[in-house]
Amino acid sequence: MLGEFDFIRRFLSHFPKARVPVGPGDDCAVLAPSRGPLCVTTDCVVEDVHFTRASFSPADIGHKALAVNLSDVASMGATPRWFLCSLALPQGFPLAHLSGLARGMSALAREHHIDLVGGNFTSARELSVTITATGELTRPPLTRAGARPGDWLYVSGTLGDARLGLAHLRAGVTRGASVRRQRRPQPRVALGQLAARFASAALDVSDGLAQDLGHLCTASQVRATVELARLPMSAVVRRALGAEGALAGGEDYELLLAVPSRRGKAFEQACARGGHAVTRVGEVSRGSGWVILDEAGRVVRRPGGFDHFGSASGVD
Amino acid sequence: MLGEFDFIRRFLSHFPKARVPVGPGDDCAVLAPSRGPLCVTTDCVVEDVHFTRASFSPADIGHKALAVNLSDVASMGATPRWFLCSLALPQGFPLAHLSGLARGMSALAREHHIDLVGGNFTSARELSVTITATGELTRPPLTRAGARPGDWLYVSGTLGDARLGLAHLRAGVTRGASVRRQRRPQPRVALGQLAARFASAALDVSDGLAQDLGHLCTASQVRATVELARLPMSAVVRRALGAEGALAGGEDYELLLAVPSRRGKAFEQACARGGHAVTRVGEVSRGSGWVILDEAGRVVRRPGGFDHFGSASGVD
Repeated sequence: MLGEFDFIRRFLSHFPKARVPVGPGDDCAVLAPSRGPLCVTTDCVVEDVHFTRASFSPADIGHKALAVNLSDVASMGATPRWFLCSLALPQGFPLAHLSGLARGMSALAREHHIDLVGGNFTSARELSVTITATGELTRPPLTRAGARPGDWLYVSGTLGDARLGLAHLRAGVTRGASVRRQRRPQPRVALGQLAARFASAALDVSDGLAQDLGHLCTASQVRATVELARLPMSAVVRRALGAEGALAGGEDYELLLAVPSRRGKAFEQACARGGHAVTRVGEVSRGSGWVILDEAGRVVRRPGGFDHFGSASGVD
Repeated sequence: MLGEFDFIRRFLSHFPKARVPVGPGDDCAVLAPSRGPLCVTTDCVVEDVHFTRASFSPADIGHKALAVNLSDVASMGATPRWFLCSLALPQGFPLAHLSGLARGMSALAREHHIDLVGGNFTSARELSVTITATGELTRPPLTRAGARPGDWLYVSGTLGDARLGLAHLRAGVTRGASVRRQRRPQPRVALGQLAARFASAALDVSDGLAQDLGHLCTASQVRATVELARLPMSAVVRRALGAEGALAGGEDYELLLAVPSRRGKAFEQACARGGHAVTRVGEVSRGSGWVILDEAGRVVRRPGGFDHFGSASGVD
């Protein structure tokens, strides 16, 4: 029978040794001094809420738990540095699954050069993984509050794929690009760092663009106008969900960026050089709330209405 | 029906505004530069593992979740600075209980001047609270690895009370000092900071002194000898559990400290002036493992034997 310390050893064996004064195994980790201010976030994935063990491999779970945190670090324009991992494991959780979870997490950690410095194991009825991640800032952080009238709005990648992937998994379809977006979201870390040179505000699109636009407008005290025809969607999402599905989204982990219009072209060129797909979807103006316009410039959606596309019950 | 954002607002309303460049509400918090290196820890309390909702008030749960993390910060000799709180809440968790939990956490946070800078809410089948706490170091950290032959070993406060309190709660006894130690552990933050001026090593006694002595010896590659007659116990623990119960302990959240013998008297005097109860319980020597001696100097307990007092099945 394996005890807590065997589990810890097994888990840690999948990660490189952290380059810090005191790493895992003591009461606290001690971090090396950072050159710039640190940003820090915590996020949790829970069995049967954010994943099921039937549809996600242990490596998928480990990947996703870290990815959702790295996405928050990315949206500040920060460089990932250190993270801690608190694992709640059901009785009898197989050691092989623990290794799989660690491998999925470790592969993503190596890709983004973020070091595991500590953590915690506890038993629980359901599997959950809570990660706290830190990033280092070499420029002022990209907050939600920095958008200004006249800024252009950009979205990275494509929207709606993770939502479609979830629908596929629920229907028993376990392969394809959308399923992969649901299981293995890719945090836009390099884009976030690039955007820190251009953008006035950023956040990651985790709740669906419609809701996250609302967060941006509230925090920045501005109004956002998005053109429906510009929303970046994969062909399969366009066919399966349409613009409504892409807007409501959820778990896209793309970045929503506000960039001063005079910097827009330079930002687009830098993105093209770096291989980052970004799409200009709208603009920021004085006011509050947001609207979505169709190709004729008519309002097709306003805040407050998740009930049905076009039947806006807005509180705008 | 209240949404996630109402819960967040309600929870945050119980905490003072954090003095940081970016506080709760953005994708990450941004921390103010710290003067010294940061230490960081994460720990989790889970319903029916670390508490029951029948025996703990929401405020008890909030207190305990933060206390176990502050205890880790204390054991490094650090000054608490910032923390994040990730809450997993069952469906229908009452808003009044959320406020109670926040109040218990906030009261302890104010006492130790640690600011809530961020967090996360998720639904789950069982209630759990995962906290990540940071502390600032103005002296080298007190690790588990610093004990040296010749050091004296000290324990703060008294041992075994939390274990007795747990037994009381299970028996339906809901009042008394032991129950309070179980519900409301007091992290030894001020003592940890004082000890940073004297000690060579420290850890908090969370798994019981016997087990935590083992951690110290392994990390420091030394041998520890503890005198049974010196173990600090309250009268009620001595009567109810005896030395065996106090040794096996669990959730004491006292500090185990190794202090160079030449600094021992000065340390004791500083503790007396500061109102910190510490008891010299033994000493460190060359070798490995630990032993407990009775009043006649006979070995009564060695590592590996949790089976029965005196029948050591050690792997020493």
